[in-house]
Amino acid sequence: MNRQHDMTAHAIARLTDDERLDWLRLIRSQNVGPRTFHALINHYGHARAALAALPQLARRGGASAPGRICTHAEAEREMAAAGAAGVTFVSLSEPDYPLRLAMIDDAPPLIAVRGELAALARPTVAIVGARNASAAGIKFAERLARELGEAGLVVASGLARGIDAAAHRGSLTTGTVAAIAGGHNSIYPPEHAALADAIAENGVVLSEMPLDHEPRARDFPRRNRLISGLAAGVVVIEAAQRSGSLITARMALEQGREVFAVPGSPLDPRCEGSNNLLKQGAAPVTEAADVTAALRPIFERPQQLSAQEPDHPIAPSPPGEPSHDQRDRLLTLLGPTPVGVDDLIRLSGLPPAIVRSVLLEFELAGRLERHGGGLVSLTPN
Amino acid sequence: MNRQHDMTAHAIARLTDDERLDWLRLIRSQNVGPRTFHALINHYGHARAALAALPQLARRGGASAPGRICTHAEAEREMAAAGAAGVTFVSLSEPDYPLRLAMIDDAPPLIAVRGELAALARPTVAIVGARNASAAGIKFAERLARELGEAGLVVASGLARGIDAAAHRGSLTTGTVAAIAGGHNSIYPPEHAALADAIAENGVVLSEMPLDHEPRARDFPRRNRLISGLAAGVVVIEAAQRSGSLITARMALEQGREVFAVPGSPLDPRCEGSNNLLKQGAAPVTEAADVTAALRPIFERPQQLSAQEPDHPIAPSPPGEPSHDQRDRLLTLLGPTPVGVDDLIRLSGLPPAIVRSVLLEFELAGRLERHGGGLVSLTPN
Repeated sequence: MNRQHDMTAHAIARLTDDERLDWLRLIRSQNVGPRTFHALINHYGHARAALAALPQLARRGGASAPGRICTHAEAEREMAAAGAAGVTFVSLSEPDYPLRLAMIDDAPPLIAVRGELAALARPTVAIVGARNASAAGIKFAERLARELGEAGLVVASGLARGIDAAAHRGSLTTGTVAAIAGGHNSIYPPEHAALADAIAENGVVLSEMPLDHEPRARDFPRRNRLISGLAAGVVVIEAAQRSGSLITARMALEQGREVFAVPGSPLDPRCEGSNNLLKQGAAPVTEAADVTAALRPIFERPQQLSAQEPDHPIAPSPPGEPSHDQRDRLLTLLGPTPVGVDDLIRLSGLPPAIVRSVLLEFELAGRLERHGGGLVSLTPN
Repeated sequence: MNRQHDMTAHAIARLTDDERLDWLRLIRSQNVGPRTFHALINHYGHARAALAALPQLARRGGASAPGRICTHAEAEREMAAAGAAGVTFVSLSEPDYPLRLAMIDDAPPLIAVRGELAALARPTVAIVGARNASAAGIKFAERLARELGEAGLVVASGLARGIDAAAHRGSLTTGTVAAIAGGHNSIYPPEHAALADAIAENGVVLSEMPLDHEPRARDFPRRNRLISGLAAGVVVIEAAQRSGSLITARMALEQGREVFAVPGSPLDPRCEGSNNLLKQGAAPVTEAADVTAALRPIFERPQQLSAQEPDHPIAPSPPGEPSHDQRDRLLTLLGPTPVGVDDLIRLSGLPPAIVRSVLLEFELAGRLERHGGGLVSLTPN
């Protein structure tokens, strides 16, 4: 993905306050998700130019009304409120940003973090599982997290009831990271507010959402990619079929992370998903050594920002404006089934810069969705 | 192993009553186990000649007193008692002998069987596990056995308390085989005598021991090779570390059988062994389909008596008598660490027939043990 170029280009320097505000405005604007953000920065060189181009791009993409752009004042208010809540924004281009998370396809451009930021630089493993966990599952999660913490690992999880909370509790003193689905001022479930405070003592609470954002159902799967993205491996304890933990496991696989599963009784529906992971090749875990032995060689490998070559350096000026014909040609090739951008370039015969421009326009007009692996599809009406 | 030649040579015909009696005498004689039996038949062509040669062989092997040979009268009494108990002897060379069991290295030359012998010809899977099983383990074993039975498989197990008994109970109507460690008149545990009777209604109770033999501790591991040998795969449910079920799993691997393990809580010591099997690559099982899907292609393969070429046809007359020097040379090469017969032939420079003769002599003198894979060692004093 193009984002990698952007990251390598910026990874040495902190943003200025003005730049950070521009980044915040851009990612908070309508129809701009992490992938669009990276595509825009790639096209326009920096956030301010992208912000200026948004209305025109959306109009060209066929939006009846341009998507709402986050104002300078709104971004300033969010920054101030974050500061008051002890929350800081770390951008993908800065050294405090967790290196593994930066490598995922749809890494959040800005993360809002609270706590001991040094924890984000340490080797991390995720533990996730059922909210309605059994007593045995909770006990095992807490023990495993404690032992992994004692082995020097940071434990990431999702602050949910059940397994997640047990994993955080077991690793409070050694360091744990909670990736939450809402904003920092809207901890879910509410009774875990004190746990979040305790996590921030030696670890980090992390969110990509606005400070007061109340999490909706669709925010949890999206958040799950952060849990796996932070970690070199994900341990699943007591996951039912079609549970959120299995989504995290799937994302972990897509991100090239190790997937571990704790065996459980075939008579307990809470273990059906985790046992199925075993059948699909996940490594069985009954003690911390199973995890540390598998991850040690991974942590000992030097971390690289990207296995791919970075793209050619991009011009900081926008490419030539696509023509109507070119837009139509691409619209014909697109449908609800995700297709590769590379295929669109090949099948349309258009210059790659033009194809990317048109896709950006469609995206900002709310007509296009980006998926993992360079795939795009038209948004169903 | 040479036994395969013997088996293919005989597999078409039933033994005469006299031959069966000779086989029984030979396998019931001191220092004659299944491997020695096969080596003797291979050297002497038939059991009667081997019986006649036993005293001389043992003397040449250095025995102070010749091993006790089962008399004709003793064998006749065992035959008569078996008949009275509804037990028949099936030899390795006969069509009723289970084909998979015939393929193992140390297949019993004679099995004493009671029940519906047709069950021995059907596709078979073994289920084994803890005697002190949990209620969940017992429930699952019974359900799995029932479903595998409904899928057309015979379920083999060991008539022990806990998982074994549950596996038999679940498959009583569809057909189940109990391989027991003692003789047919010494069912262990005694309270399972009624279960053994019920098994014999549609399945088989099978033993290689004399009718009245009371099982000792060392008979159980030896019996376990029969459970795995009867089956194309072994499912392990709730096995602690260092448990008999793990011995069965190890034998299954040595015999080239599939090994399955049912996942269980890491907090239950009864699941430690079975979970470790998962870590070592055993296939996880949470439902019958996991087993049937894996075994179907195996059952659909035509069964072969041996993957190896049979040995060259053997002369029915004994080879030349080994010299003192030759015996000494082999004795020097032997020790408590198992070594391959092939290595002994190579390192001694002696003709293979002489090496085999000397090994037989040592064996019948109680000075040599045979292990799997063609390995032999001196018996520690």
